[in-house]
Formats: sequence, C-alpha cells, structure tokens
Amino acid sequence: MSFIRKIVKPHNEEDKQLYNELKTLLSFSPRKIHKYKKAFTHRSVQMLDEKGMPINYERLEFLGDSILGSVIAAYLYKKVPEGTEGYLTQMRSKIVSREHLNELGKDLDLIRFVKSNIDQANVGDNIHGNIFEALIGAIYLDRGYNYCQKFIYEKVVMPYVDIAKLEGKITSYKGLIIEWCQKSKKKYSFDTYEDTGNEPIKHFSVKISIDGEQIAKGRATSKKKAEEQASKRVYFAFQNQIN
Amino acid sequence: MSFIRKIVKPHNEEDKQLYNELKTLLSFSPRKIHKYKKAFTHRSVQMLDEKGMPINYERLEFLGDSILGSVIAAYLYKKVPEGTEGYLTQMRSKIVSREHLNELGKDLDLIRFVKSNIDQANVGDNIHGNIFEALIGAIYLDRGYNYCQKFIYEKVVMPYVDIAKLEGKITSYKGLIIEWCQKSKKKYSFDTYEDTGNEPIKHFSVKISIDGEQIAKGRATSKKKAEEQASKRVYFAFQNQIN
Repeated sequence: MSFIRKIVKPHNEEDKQLYNELKTLLSFSPRKIHKYKKAFTHRSVQMLDEKGMPINYERLEFLGDSILGSVIAAYLYKKVPEGTEGYLTQMRSKIVSREHLNELGKDLDLIRFVKSNIDQANVGDNIHGNIFEALIGAIYLDRGYNYCQKFIYEKVVMPYVDIAKLEGKITSYKGLIIEWCQKSKKKYSFDTYEDTGNEPIKHFSVKISIDGEQIAKGRATSKKKAEEQASKRVYFAFQNQIN
Repeated sequence: MSFIRKIVKPHNEEDKQLYNELKTLLSFSPRKIHKYKKAFTHRSVQMLDEKGMPINYERLEFLGDSILGSVIAAYLYKKVPEGTEGYLTQMRSKIVSREHLNELGKDLDLIRFVKSNIDQANVGDNIHGNIFEALIGAIYLDRGYNYCQKFIYEKVVMPYVDIAKLEGKITSYKGLIIEWCQKSKKKYSFDTYEDTGNEPIKHFSVKISIDGEQIAKGRATSKKKAEEQASKRVYFAFQNQIN
C-alpha cells in the first residue's frame, strides 16, 4: 500500500494540487501526473524535456482526437442499430465538432490548468477543445482505453449527446417519408395489419413500399408505433436523398 | 467448461468451418460468430435480420475504421516520440490508406469468406480493405479493444509498417538539413563536442542552430549518431518546409 501511494501521490505542492483537482474531474486517481501536465502546456511555453523535445499538448491532442473518435463510433454503433454508415459518420462529426469540443472544454473549465505564455484572451477559442482532446490522450497513456471510454461516457455522452436533438428533432418519421415521397413523385404504401400471433398483447406490423419495392418493416403494440419504427428505417435508408 | 464450449463452438458445419478458419487467422477463439458473418456479408446479399434491418458489413466497416485509426495513432505516438502532430497525422494516413488496406485484405485472403450476389470480378478492389475494416469492427464487438489492438499489431504493424520506408527512406538527416539550409539560404551550425560526463563510455553532444536560434540537441556515443539524432529532430520541427 505504501509503495502504491509513493508512486501515485506527487511530492511538490503544485503537483499535489493538480492531482487533487484531476481526481475530482476524472473520478479516478491519476498516476502519471506528468502526462496531464503536458496535456495542459501550450507551445508558447517553449519547454523542452531532457532529450530536447518540446513539451506541449499538440501530440497528445492528435492521440486524444483519435481515441475520442473511436469511443464515439462504438457508442453510436450500439446506440443506433438502424443508423446507416453515412448516418453514423454524420452523427459522429456533429458530436466531435470543434464547436462542440470547445463548449465541453469550457464547461469543464480546463483552461484553469493551462500553462501558456500568451494572454488567455489571445489564445483563441479552439484551445478549449484542443486541451479536452489532449486530456483524453493523457488519460489513455496514464490508464488505457477503458478509462478513456468511461470518462468520455460520463463527460461527453451523458451530458451532451442527445441523439434526437442532433438529428434535428424529427417528430414524425411517417410524415417526413410521405412528404418526401410526394415531393419527389414516388409512389408509396403503408401496409399495416394486426399481427399478434401467439402473444398476449395485440401487435401490429407494417410494410412500407416505395415505387413497388418493399423498403422496411416494423412491428409494435400500436399501429402508430409500428409505422413510426418502419418509417424511421426508411428515413435512414434514404437519408442522403431526404435531407 | 461445458457451458463455455456450448456458447463458443458453433453447431452447423458451415459455422464450424468459419470458426476454425477464423481461429487460425485471428490467433484467438472467436465467440460471437455472427458478428464475423456480418463482417463478410456484402450488401448485394440483401439479407435482413429478425427486426427487418439489413445484414451487411457497412456499419462494421465504419466501426473498424475508427478503431484502426486510434490503434495506429497510439502506436505512432509511442513509436515516434519526435514526430510532430502533423507528422503523426501524415504517417497514419499512409498506413490506413485505401490502397494499403486493400493490400492487407488481399494478403489475408479475406475475400474467401465473403458472401455476395455480385461476381467477384465486379465488386471492385476496395472490398478487400472494406472487409478488413469490418473484421476489426467484429473483433471489437466480439472481444473488445485490446484484442483489436493485438490483431492490428500482428497483422498490420509488424508485417507492414516500416516507418523509414513510409518516410521515404531518408539515409542521412544531417545531409538533408544542410541541403535544405543551403537551398533556402539559412545559416546553420552544428556545435558538436565531447560530453562524456561521469559515464564509462565516451559521449558526444551536438546543438544545431539555424539562423542563430538553437533548434535541437542530440547526445550519443559517436559524433555521427549524435548529429543524426539532432538532425532528425530538426527535420521533424521543419517537416512542412523541408518536403
């Protein structure tokens, strides 16, 4: 126990404070405190390590950006099973947009940790997103992929990712599909029928066809739900044309 | 034990064969065989799952692409400590280029697993890289990030990633730096001196300055090694201007 404490707990006052603040921010104990210090060092500081290499967050930003992208990709893959490849790509872009990451970095007030030789007013807005990415890179090097994933879920996905909002608040997929078919002069049909089978609760199924070809099916406990489910699938299948 | 075997080992002959071939390819036992089957199903098969969702590799390709990118990013970050953010981005692009992935997919002969309703001659070359990415997506869903990393190291990094070759076979960084300084009319100096200190073996240090500003340092057991080390750092610092 004393051995572990020796490694984990930093010695000087400045590191101790950073350690404590990071522990609150991350919800776990950081181990390699120097990785986090690097993540918060702007290039203007012009610091070099013992090998003459510059110490700043730019390389960590590259690493964190990549880890963030894959964590969000895996999240979306599981969360939106009906989303096409194009849809998933588009949603990820929205989540990891510069604007979104800057907002995140600001909300976490990461700038309080940053060392820079430029006035805070002059560093530009992107620094907030950049150090957020660099922080993810530092977490990866400190504790590995699973800790990154947990941090990203807690700090990005749960508070910020509202799929419906990102999609643009579609209230009725059926309405959207009908509107689109009418506009683009496509014949459409909703073939909705009772399909309870051996189940105790009444169920409905629907088949949607466009220009004679069956595009999607849905099944639920009400006509409306089944139609919305199937319409949503049509929406994803033709998303590029509809939007 | 018998319970685990029940889950892991597939029942029908076709799945058994796929299981055995995958085990050889992956160097571990696959568990969720249906994920791999999906990774090898082309959209032309037009198969639907029980919810009416298409079964093909396109979504897995999105997932695998992202995981691959982050594994390669982390590899490069650690492998090339002197590489700038720009350098790392460029090197990753080369490694995960469509051409490179197609070559990989072909070498692993992944096409033998693919189900498609289009003639193999007509699917195009990109299918090789696409199913390689989809396979990584399937590994992620089956066994998680660390198995992906291991597979990518064994099948991509070790056999294919030759940093020097990707950089364009630079044999002398010192020569390159001198040539660049002369071409762009910059003053340069190599300040090389013995710097053994208390060590048992003779050491040399070098400081490289360009236009009066010290850019990089190097230290090694020979003048040549120290100069190459420092020159390489100058190269990375000015890479965008040199190339």
